[in-house]
This record gives sequence, structure tokens and C-alpha cells, in this order.
Amino acid sequence: MRRKTDQTRQRIVDAAYELFWRSGFTRTNVDRIAAEANLTKRTLYSYFRSKDDLLAAVLLRYGELAAARLQRIGERTPDDQIGMIESLFNQMAGWAGATPRWSGSGFTRLVVELADLPGHPARAIARRHKTTTEAWLAGRLAKARVGRPQERARDVMLLIEGSMALMLIHGDRSYIDAASRAAKQLIKQK
Amino acid sequence: MRRKTDQTRQRIVDAAYELFWRSGFTRTNVDRIAAEANLTKRTLYSYFRSKDDLLAAVLLRYGELAAARLQRIGERTPDDQIGMIESLFNQMAGWAGATPRWSGSGFTRLVVELADLPGHPARAIARRHKTTTEAWLAGRLAKARVGRPQERARDVMLLIEGSMALMLIHGDRSYIDAASRAAKQLIKQK
Repeated sequence: MRRKTDQTRQRIVDAAYELFWRSGFTRTNVDRIAAEANLTKRTLYSYFRSKDDLLAAVLLRYGELAAARLQRIGERTPDDQIGMIESLFNQMAGWAGATPRWSGSGFTRLVVELADLPGHPARAIARRHKTTTEAWLAGRLAKARVGRPQERARDVMLLIEGSMALMLIHGDRSYIDAASRAAKQLIKQK
Repeated sequence: MRRKTDQTRQRIVDAAYELFWRSGFTRTNVDRIAAEANLTKRTLYSYFRSKDDLLAAVLLRYGELAAARLQRIGERTPDDQIGMIESLFNQMAGWAGATPRWSGSGFTRLVVELADLPGHPARAIARRHKTTTEAWLAGRLAKARVGRPQERARDVMLLIEGSMALMLIHGDRSYIDAASRAAKQLIKQK
């Protein structure tokens, strides 16, 4: 029984994750999530009290997937300074190119959707994720003996976020290439 | 009569602009716009057939305001390379700091909200606006005798978009300062 309950819960979270990713949080309604998960809205509400509760569960899932992605990126990333930067941005370009209707970082998108709600719990989770990513980058840069790795990690974060925004706006991956070149230039600093 | 009609139309656009800015496009409904403009929904629909039509009118207004802002920024921006970059990012920080519930570029936000609708007419307007801004930057950089002004304009755009995203995520203006420093470093290239 417990098992079936867990499976149903997971099915709801997966459907919500899929739909939030596809159409954003605001434009996805609970009816559609229930339909996608193949159950009634009443059943859905016996697992999650509200769309915000469901969002919290989805964000945990987002966070796990994002951590797994960082892990995989890390495994594929060489330790030399130039190779590392190229690999990071190439993997980003590959992700953008291979994902149908790619819309950039799910966390960034959520923050933009909830821009007028700074106290929303999802905002804190997104913030933590970005902080973790920046610290992870600083660790990699330090390992590659880049000077002032914390400051350079911040530069790389700026270029990652900027290139995701401009790639989404223009549908043009040359912004990712430009970001990669700029990052290589910036990590040369003493 | 024509005059009163124009004024009413303008009042609707202003109310919609205000609300789209505050809560985003998706979460703003037509009832609220009508209430804010102090008229009935029926009257609103005699001016605009749909929320999307209204969005098109609001985007024209966005575009005018954005062009006026670029103009003002230009007037306040010195022509020396370092001073220009510092002035640009300082003005951005001032804008972010002075705007209640600042949520970054309205065009970027709209593109993120409509990430799954690449064919939406609003996306094309946003794209044009960013292209204009990048060309304007390239012109300013060329005037300041920065080498490869087109490529450097792209770098500055990446840092502007990245710092708006991270400023929104973290509520921390030090990302704008970091972007300013990175931009100054990048325009030094031969």
C-alpha cells in the first residue's frame, strides 16, 4: 500500500515537473497535471494541498536533477583552465540544442516568473541552487589553479546566465560561443 | 470625441503596462486591468480584442520607454572606454535600486514567460529590441575606439543580461559591480 502511494505521488511530481518545464509554473493548472498523471484532481489534492505544495516537491526533484547534472558535467570536464571552460560551455550548448523547446535554467525561469514575490519559498530554493553552482565552479577553477577562483566563478556565472538569456531571446547559439571566449579571456587575469 | 477615445485607450495601456510590469503577463488578468483603468471589461474589449492585442500595444509603449532610456543613458555616458562601462553599469544599478520590486528587463522577462511559444509576436518585438540595444552599444564602443566593437558589444550584452538575472535571483547588487569589472577587462583586448 505504502508502495502504491509512493508511486502515485511520484507520478504526480513527474507530470508537474514536465508541465512546469514546458509551459512555466503560472500557465500550468492543476487540472492539466491531474490529466497528465492520469488521475482525478481529487486524488491529486489528497497528495498535495495546493499547487504551491506541488511546486515545493517539484523543486526538490529539480534540485536532484540539477545536482546530478553538475556531477556529470564535472566528470566530463578536464582540469586544465582552457579545456574546462570550453567543456562547460560546449555542454551547455549541447543541452540547449538537444532539448526540445529549451527554455534555459528552470530555476532562473521560476525566479523570473515569481519576480514580484521575493518571499516565495521557491525563490529561496533557487537562490541556494545558484549559490551551490557558483561554489562548485570556484572549486573547479581553484583545482585548475586559476587565480582568484571565487571572483572568476562569479564572472563565469554572469556569462552562463547571460548566454542562456540571449540564446533564449535570439535562438542563436553563437551567444554561448561568445560567452565561452569571454570566460577564457577573464580567467587569464592574475 | 476622438480625443476622449485616445485618452481612454492610453489609460488602458498604462494600466496594463503597470500590471504586466508588476506581476508579469501571465498572472495579470483582464478584469484587473479594467479595474485599474477604472472602466468596465466591456469597454476595455471595445478597444482591444484580446489580452494579446493589449500586449502588442503595451510592447510599443515598452519600446518607446526603452528607447528613451537608451537615449538618456547615452547622454549621461562619457566617451572614454572605462568611464563608459562604469557609467552604464552604475546606471543599471541605480535603476534596479530605485525601482520598487525591480524585476530586470521587461523584454527578457516576457521572453522567459513565453519561453514555450517561440512564434508569439511579442518574442519578435523583444528580439528586435535586444538587437537594437546591442547595435547601439557597438556604436558607443566604436566611438570610444574600443577594438572589435561588435564582439565587445556582445560581451557587454552577456554581462548585462547575466547581472540582471543574478541580481534578481540573489537581490545582491555586487553582481552588477562584478559585471562592470569583467566588462572593463574584456574591452581592453586588442
